[in-house]
Amino acid sequence: MWYNEKAFTSSRYSLHVMDKVIRKEKSKYQTIELFDNELFGKVLALDGIYQTSIKDEFYYHEMIVHPALKVSHTRERVLIIGGGDLGTARRVLQYPEVEHVDLVEIDENVVDICEKVMPEIGGSAWDDERLYVKIMDGVEFLKDPSPQFLKYNVIIVDGSDPVGPAEVLVTEEFYRDCYNILEKDGILITQSGSPFSMKESFYKNVKTLQKVFDDAYPYFSPVPLYTNGNWSYIMAIKGMDLHPLGLRRQHIKTWEKIKEKCKYYNEQIHTASFTLPEDIKRDLFPEFG
Amino acid sequence: MWYNEKAFTSSRYSLHVMDKVIRKEKSKYQTIELFDNELFGKVLALDGIYQTSIKDEFYYHEMIVHPALKVSHTRERVLIIGGGDLGTARRVLQYPEVEHVDLVEIDENVVDICEKVMPEIGGSAWDDERLYVKIMDGVEFLKDPSPQFLKYNVIIVDGSDPVGPAEVLVTEEFYRDCYNILEKDGILITQSGSPFSMKESFYKNVKTLQKVFDDAYPYFSPVPLYTNGNWSYIMAIKGMDLHPLGLRRQHIKTWEKIKEKCKYYNEQIHTASFTLPEDIKRDLFPEFG
Repeated sequence: MWYNEKAFTSSRYSLHVMDKVIRKEKSKYQTIELFDNELFGKVLALDGIYQTSIKDEFYYHEMIVHPALKVSHTRERVLIIGGGDLGTARRVLQYPEVEHVDLVEIDENVVDICEKVMPEIGGSAWDDERLYVKIMDGVEFLKDPSPQFLKYNVIIVDGSDPVGPAEVLVTEEFYRDCYNILEKDGILITQSGSPFSMKESFYKNVKTLQKVFDDAYPYFSPVPLYTNGNWSYIMAIKGMDLHPLGLRRQHIKTWEKIKEKCKYYNEQIHTASFTLPEDIKRDLFPEFG
Repeated sequence: MWYNEKAFTSSRYSLHVMDKVIRKEKSKYQTIELFDNELFGKVLALDGIYQTSIKDEFYYHEMIVHPALKVSHTRERVLIIGGGDLGTARRVLQYPEVEHVDLVEIDENVVDICEKVMPEIGGSAWDDERLYVKIMDGVEFLKDPSPQFLKYNVIIVDGSDPVGPAEVLVTEEFYRDCYNILEKDGILITQSGSPFSMKESFYKNVKTLQKVFDDAYPYFSPVPLYTNGNWSYIMAIKGMDLHPLGLRRQHIKTWEKIKEKCKYYNEQIHTASFTLPEDIKRDLFPEFG
């Protein structure tokens, strides 16, 4: 039995399903499916699109977390929008300086299934007292912060592709709300799809973030579960004091401990991942000729 | 109608076939198929495995050629083993210093079909008088050079994955024969599969080349048509005078002209592509800790 992904109309990545689909349910927002595959181990799919797997999750989760946390001057308060598998939260919580993480996931069923069926991805995050999981729409959360609201140092938008429930997570309005609840020198990271098969939306996303934030830098990594070569992310910066390749001297000690936990990311990969392919450089940053 | 790739037993990348398969024939060595897809344009498959496409071929061909040609001190004589679509030859022939290119392709039908149905990939190489296409087994070619034989500066092994006719292109014996027909300061490049789904054979290939050559460096690029994240290549060096990140001052002028023709590769990508992910660094180069 094969699972046929429904990501695109002209290509699809099919994975062999060992035994049978472990779990399939329809939540208020989407169809959630979990199955086992020889190459990827357990695989999570939402509305027919692969989200993450046991064997390859480290590529994506390390790359959506460490570039921001490495560069950020302060790491006390982090907001994760989406990320119901807790793979992003786990990496954020590896930093001892992190005091408070809000994770705002729209779909309670995703969190439930991940905790029961693939808890390895969240690991120690499931029991970390610094993590506050809120089941609600990320867009609403940003509109209506609580009275004792404190701003964030880092926001990570770990949503599915911008169709279905995640559609609102790439709008100018959404990014403005993010900008407003970031501290000075705050960083936002978002995943931004395949720069090959989703080139137009990737370009648009970079431009929207460049407009709303003080600067925005795309970067790339392979994610084996996602087809068509590299995956893209964007780092958007509030203020002019941060550089995407920076690391503060006082943070080196923390970094020395984190890096032992990484399987893909390291300091050289950080720099390499911000290297722009020639076509993308010409299209988005002609001034760097 | 969908074309289902037969690369792996537990995963397969299927592409939608527009209209019908343009060409399908069984040669002495393999089944050759060509069809049209919305995302990739014309796609070539050998024995059910995608080789190249009109829309994404530049990733692979730029990355199997330019790193070697950029680093090599001398570029007069180049040997290509495989590469019947002439995409590799086209990039090699962009260097005016290149005087003579032997392309040894085992399967005449591949060359014929590519010339007729997807000539864009070879472009001007089809009419370049410096290119000598020889239809024969690359292994035999290395064993029995002609009497007026001159050694090569660069060898590019542009074969399909090491099953079927390309199986012999990863053996120690084959690499020794390559080493022997390289000039001093010669470079060999080979594609080496997915470092995720073909990790064992990739590691073995690096080690075989490290044993036979004086040094060998893996490097990576996305190739959208190939699934599972990045693709790997290996640069093997004869002698101790070359460095994979080097560029000679006297070659900068040539390089300035070549780089305008690139869509993926540039000088920063060159350096970034040799950056090792943490797991691969630990496994293959623990001395770089």
